[in-house]
Amino acid sequence: MKIIVDGFGGDNAPLAVLQGCELAVKEYGVDLLVTGDEEILKKTARENNISLDRIAFYHAPGVIGMEDEPTALLKEKSDCSMAAAFNLLKGGAGDAFVSGGSTGAIVIGANFIVKRIKGIKRAGLATVIPTINGCYMLMDAGATLDCKPETLTHFGMMGSIYMNKIMDVREPRVGLVNVGTEDTKGGELQQGAFSMMQNAPMNFIGNIEARDIPAGVADVAVADGFTGNVILKLTEGLGSMFSKKIKDMFMEGLGGKLSAVMMMGKIKDFKKSMDYTEYGGAPLLGVMKPVIKAHGSSNPKAFKNAIRQARDFAERNLIGEIEAAVQQMKNAGEE
Amino acid sequence: MKIIVDGFGGDNAPLAVLQGCELAVKEYGVDLLVTGDEEILKKTARENNISLDRIAFYHAPGVIGMEDEPTALLKEKSDCSMAAAFNLLKGGAGDAFVSGGSTGAIVIGANFIVKRIKGIKRAGLATVIPTINGCYMLMDAGATLDCKPETLTHFGMMGSIYMNKIMDVREPRVGLVNVGTEDTKGGELQQGAFSMMQNAPMNFIGNIEARDIPAGVADVAVADGFTGNVILKLTEGLGSMFSKKIKDMFMEGLGGKLSAVMMMGKIKDFKKSMDYTEYGGAPLLGVMKPVIKAHGSSNPKAFKNAIRQARDFAERNLIGEIEAAVQQMKNAGEE
Repeated sequence: MKIIVDGFGGDNAPLAVLQGCELAVKEYGVDLLVTGDEEILKKTARENNISLDRIAFYHAPGVIGMEDEPTALLKEKSDCSMAAAFNLLKGGAGDAFVSGGSTGAIVIGANFIVKRIKGIKRAGLATVIPTINGCYMLMDAGATLDCKPETLTHFGMMGSIYMNKIMDVREPRVGLVNVGTEDTKGGELQQGAFSMMQNAPMNFIGNIEARDIPAGVADVAVADGFTGNVILKLTEGLGSMFSKKIKDMFMEGLGGKLSAVMMMGKIKDFKKSMDYTEYGGAPLLGVMKPVIKAHGSSNPKAFKNAIRQARDFAERNLIGEIEAAVQQMKNAGEE
Repeated sequence: MKIIVDGFGGDNAPLAVLQGCELAVKEYGVDLLVTGDEEILKKTARENNISLDRIAFYHAPGVIGMEDEPTALLKEKSDCSMAAAFNLLKGGAGDAFVSGGSTGAIVIGANFIVKRIKGIKRAGLATVIPTINGCYMLMDAGATLDCKPETLTHFGMMGSIYMNKIMDVREPRVGLVNVGTEDTKGGELQQGAFSMMQNAPMNFIGNIEARDIPAGVADVAVADGFTGNVILKLTEGLGSMFSKKIKDMFMEGLGGKLSAVMMMGKIKDFKKSMDYTEYGGAPLLGVMKPVIKAHGSSNPKAFKNAIRQARDFAERNLIGEIEAAVQQMKNAGEE
């Protein structure tokens, strides 16, 4: 198993990337191919005593940043670490790819270099988010803003396969995010998706309201990329707000400070249970090869987790499962 | 000043409605006209010692429920308390209207009985939601699912006028909810709205991300009704989840219970600061008369607050302000 890693993706690259690679080799015994400016990568490893056992480099001097247009990946930035990685992935030099770089550029590279699975017209970025007593997959978190009923149906099917094969959820409950739970709710997009999803190969539970998502009403919450992106970011924003409010509550007055000491462990557990980076990166589903988007602010441990995720993605043959599901849906439609 | 009140709107109607009316008469000296089955209303008042000073009834025996199609208001349920109230409002029997009934039916009644302000094609439901240190108005919270750039522009203008005249915010900052803050972000709808909003009479601050809304990045967050409804409901759902997590943290173990005793006051303050029903009901903006949707689970105090809101809405001539803003925008476009 060989995983390709973008050496210059993320706020803490290349140091955190290389440290994550070292941890992953030790823990999972994978082989890694890291793209980027070889001289800088070697120097960073040397200066930080990072073992390069089972880690190879592929020289690509450029970097695509958050300020660059995502499409620059295919043009003026085609020499960058991410573009090189996508081309290596396409050519079969590795089994899966991990990057902490620009989400927009990753979506472009996946769609235009690696290309999509036959029958899937749009890729979706899947993010696993904590609920009150577990987690759910939000699909799509922002890769495809303008969706059709078929797009949402494919998102549901792919999310279901991921939750089943990678997160070990039996018959994942797939819900369509809507403004009400009744079958006829929503606009044209949701109404069209509802009837298509009812007949697709997955455990579709119908429309769900955003109010019920944090309580765990579904294992996969399907939404167009615009709505999904709003859900992801509002979850982050409200999480920060509540954490700050709780912190202020404990910092104020003697009662608060004493309580903070007594409850230190619980506060830490609470924070951890709300931290969605614990679940690793976000898989981009619908493309021909496994692609994992690590969080931009990933630390070495987060990169290590994303590499494990990429390995599982490749090992458990998710691409094959998705291809089979699309075929099954097509056959059912032709009957 | 006379406010029309739907006697049978809300989970706790008619008792909570009548109790709220009694409080409002005492506190604000308004005259009220309550619609519904007169016999039941009188009996409820008598049995609960509710003073009917300055409260008149208008007999309308039917009730439109949450399970009814909203459009039933215009047809088979045209004898209900809400339909009667809308007709009274249209005819000038009162200056404003408050209902805790079905949101869908209120939107229908406002659009088809009272009708919209000239130049405004869609009405929006505005909800005031707490932020870390204040509040913001979400517009639209679900009245109009399919929006055009012009719809969003009008939502921003109307929300701005409301926040200025009713919530006393000087030059309200109006932001467009989008997937990024750059000017070119989003789909067709957002891109079209962005350029139109830049030239409309309001303090438009550009695109905002859902992540920054709870931190108070804007006074008015503009979104289509689908996205807005998801924002409102996810805010509710995450609020419940965090409250439950905090409660569990305090209920567990001796340290937790001791802390709960020491921090009782702060926990109550925290809960209150997160309760968006404190801000009263949701105004439906864009129609010819003031309409306030009270929360379905409103208690007497919430109904009293919604009646005060309706009074302010009428007294401060919001309809006139909105008409003037629409005209100003029209003139600017013709220059």
